[in-house]
Amino acid sequence: MVTVDLNCDLGESFGAWRMSDDDALLPLITTANVACGFHAGDPQTMLATCRAAAALGVTVAAHPGYRDLVGFGRRDIAMAPDALRADLLYQVSALAGLAVTAGTAVRALKPHGALYNRAAVDPVTAAVVAEVGAERGLPVLGLAGSAMEHACAAAGTPFIAEAFVDRGYRPDGTLAPRGEPGAVLTEASAVAARAVRMVREGRVEAVDGTALSVRVQSLCVHSDTPGAVAIARAVRDALLEAGVTVQAAA
Amino acid sequence: MVTVDLNCDLGESFGAWRMSDDDALLPLITTANVACGFHAGDPQTMLATCRAAAALGVTVAAHPGYRDLVGFGRRDIAMAPDALRADLLYQVSALAGLAVTAGTAVRALKPHGALYNRAAVDPVTAAVVAEVGAERGLPVLGLAGSAMEHACAAAGTPFIAEAFVDRGYRPDGTLAPRGEPGAVLTEASAVAARAVRMVREGRVEAVDGTALSVRVQSLCVHSDTPGAVAIARAVRDALLEAGVTVQAAA
Amino acid sequence: MVTVDLNCDLGESFGAWRMSDDDALLPLITTANVACGFHAGDPQTMLATCRAAAALGVTVAAHPGYRDLVGFGRRDIAMAPDALRADLLYQVSALAGLAVTAGTAVRALKPHGALYNRAAVDPVTAAVVAEVGAERGLPVLGLAGSAMEHACAAAGTPFIAEAFVDRGYRPDGTLAPRGEPGAVLTEASAVAARAVRMVREGRVEAVDGTALSVRVQSLCVHSDTPGAVAIARAVRDALLEAGVTVQAAA
Amino acid sequence: MVTVDLNCDLGESFGAWRMSDDDALLPLITTANVACGFHAGDPQTMLATCRAAAALGVTVAAHPGYRDLVGFGRRDIAMAPDALRADLLYQVSALAGLAVTAGTAVRALKPHGALYNRAAVDPVTAAVVAEVGAERGLPVLGLAGSAMEHACAAAGTPFIAEAFVDRGYRPDGTLAPRGEPGAVLTEASAVAARAVRMVREGRVEAVDGTALSVRVQSLCVHSDTPGAVAIARAVRDALLEAGVTVQAAA
Repeated sequence: MVTVDLNCDLGESFGAWRMSDDDALLPLITTANVACGFHAGDPQTMLATCRAAAALGVTVAAHPGYRDLVGFGRRDIAMAPDALRADLLYQVSALAGLAVTAGTAVRALKPHGALYNRAAVDPVTAAVVAEVGAERGLPVLGLAGSAMEHACAAAGTPFIAEAFVDRGYRPDGTLAPRGEPGAVLTEASAVAARAVRMVREGRVEAVDGTALSVRVQSLCVHSDTPGAVAIARAVRDALLEAGVTVQAAA
Repeated sequence: MVTVDLNCDLGESFGAWRMSDDDALLPLITTANVACGFHAGDPQTMLATCRAAAALGVTVAAHPGYRDLVGFGRRDIAMAPDALRADLLYQVSALAGLAVTAGTAVRALKPHGALYNRAAVDPVTAAVVAEVGAERGLPVLGLAGSAMEHACAAAGTPFIAEAFVDRGYRPDGTLAPRGEPGAVLTEASAVAARAVRMVREGRVEAVDGTALSVRVQSLCVHSDTPGAVAIARAVRDALLEAGVTVQAAA
Repeated sequence: MVTVDLNCDLGESFGAWRMSDDDALLPLITTANVACGFHAGDPQTMLATCRAAAALGVTVAAHPGYRDLVGFGRRDIAMAPDALRADLLYQVSALAGLAVTAGTAVRALKPHGALYNRAAVDPVTAAVVAEVGAERGLPVLGLAGSAMEHACAAAGTPFIAEAFVDRGYRPDGTLAPRGEPGAVLTEASAVAARAVRMVREGRVEAVDGTALSVRVQSLCVHSDTPGAVAIARAVRDALLEAGVTVQAAA
Repeated sequence: MVTVDLNCDLGESFGAWRMSDDDALLPLITTANVACGFHAGDPQTMLATCRAAAALGVTVAAHPGYRDLVGFGRRDIAMAPDALRADLLYQVSALAGLAVTAGTAVRALKPHGALYNRAAVDPVTAAVVAEVGAERGLPVLGLAGSAMEHACAAAGTPFIAEAFVDRGYRPDGTLAPRGEPGAVLTEASAVAARAVRMVREGRVEAVDGTALSVRVQSLCVHSDTPGAVAIARAVRDALLEAGVTVQAAA
């Protein structure tokens, strides 16, 4: 039986500001990466997102980021490891408490934005994330083969390999930076076909046509693009039609 | 045997900014009310404060406040109950997680500043605090006879009555507002004698000389005044000399 | 010749979060109240909003609020007058500098949200706003007959009386609180007809049918409701059709 | 006649949190670099600092930093140039307005902390700072020979070369990183002698004894070290005794 997780960043509203159509996305996914207040996500939004996830049986993952509301956690911040560790523990714990109130629990950890990108290449940052995962008993979602995976192996933290259905890959297996041709895919049926191939065949075509191997336990669907809901639905439907079981990885 | 708790607000530094001499105060008290990040207290400070408390066997209480760094949580903010509840759960949970990492646990709840003052008189606010205490199994520290105590009774939340050793009381039992004559006491030996009388006799003299009854399970020593350490030491020494057992209430 | 200003709160995005369709609203109005960073509005958004206003000849008004991003400035905060004054000067000055860079200037002052509401009824708060207006040579937008108007008279600050086209009035001339029947009007043609009557006849019908006098130099069109653009366009068109000149009041 | 400016970072308190002894430092210096709210400095503190500077005839320089209260602006943040430019204009303008209220004016610009360090080596960041200086007619304080100086030359922005009296230099003329031996000098009389030599002879001894040339129009005295006041006084006294005129560079 072939299975895959569908994960999506949710709960990224803040006060009066809305971000993405969480109500439409939640029923389509199996893991919700819930923002923890530093880059997005006020406590009421976090609690409501946990409740909605609990009602649908969607797994809650902690999605902590840099303390940077105005930058939405997308700007790299040079942090000392001890400060980063405390920031992660704070955010994960806050969400964990709200999840309990909502009748569920935090079951995985996925760093957000610039922190995710740094953890993919910087062993020191990756080690901090992996250790927080280990300490809290949370598997970490990250890029297969990245510094994040290596750090998890070293820390004894379960690792969940994820792939991005709507992002172009370069021939070396890294993501094509936004702005480059083919970096972002927006055509739902093409993205869905690609998702099926990633999961069933473990392969994806790079932006230059190179055939790449890809190891994937979880597919990330972005939430903050205009066609996000349509893409998520197309991906889910195509996976089910291809006989793939869509279920949470944690 | 007469016992009393000595509580003090600690961990109120933020980044490069220091607040109060926590290292000197911690060995003198039995409960540390640790700021949770909204009015003061960055995650690293919170973790370090929990570790220091754990090392000394000092009980950790959550000390959440309004989200107001520049106002240090001392300005009243008109919040909807649901928003306040989520803010409290967020802060208490964040500290609880850091406390676990530090090898201890959060064992009580004391709201900070303007939130404390509002909860003492406003039943709606008090009910939110009491319900959060009940949900997390945390007794609440508050003024005897206040709306906070009544809300705890209604919610089935254990209540710890506290008195202020260095603040003047009015004949009606409320605190004299800062700025009024006799509102703040700074002479250590006078404060210490007063503390002993509060605990042993259950009495305190109001600013006009009226003799008041006072019910006290915990004495609050302020941390953010210049002579705070000397006052705390004098209070502790005087209590011990008077045969009072100083121990945590939770 | 009958003239009126159309003002609207704009520039209330923050980082990745969008608020209201500024591009569509700006060509329809004559004064843009630009958020100044404390309740909404990051510096890049402020600069872009000033540039867009300058390009269309729309007057820029400073729209400062309480320092409360998560509450969007809609929660009352108990501030000392000196602190409020400094916060207002800071915000107005920041916007003024960005306006200069954008080739325009700040020409009026309208407090936001909870600060607006407090200034309408609290003479101390109103006096602080009026004095900041006087010091910076900025007329203040506010409710006719409110504490804000009285404070402006006392401070020698020009006052611009505004009315709300899409909000219900109570028989005493105050706004019906949101949530009450008739408090918010969403039907564009009805709102437009009401706007014309306000301006041409100086009259408006209260929620109970009472005929009220209303003095109006500026009409406020809300930006953060779904039909905001349609309402603004309908109001503007109806005013022009009724022979009213729509032009900035400052 | 030999002259030099003495500059110092001030106004870095935030709300209830104090930083450095501004009252004691202000009479000893000729330029106060006033924090602008993003890394430190609330509006009331900014206004009070401008007033105190005005009363003593001390020049006010804008001291903007990254938006990072918890990191005190000492952590590098990867910002897009347009966002940085808007942040700088916002901060400089806010302080400029408060300075006017205080009866003075902003006369120079010195970036803070991590922004200062980045502008010393990164031409793109330096160009943004230099252009903001040019646009506002403000000379920029920076390290002689740094990217900051080159960017000022390119932008036509007056540049004020500063040296650090209490920091060790490496043989290549850069500052020895904190933590290395000799990186921070704390003995007041040694620092004072060094200051005199820097100004009168244009020379300083590196940590390894190498004799270096140093071009200095302004000497920076740090405010946030325990002996800051004693060092500032010793430097000032020694300069005066050596016949150096201590006066603002802008």
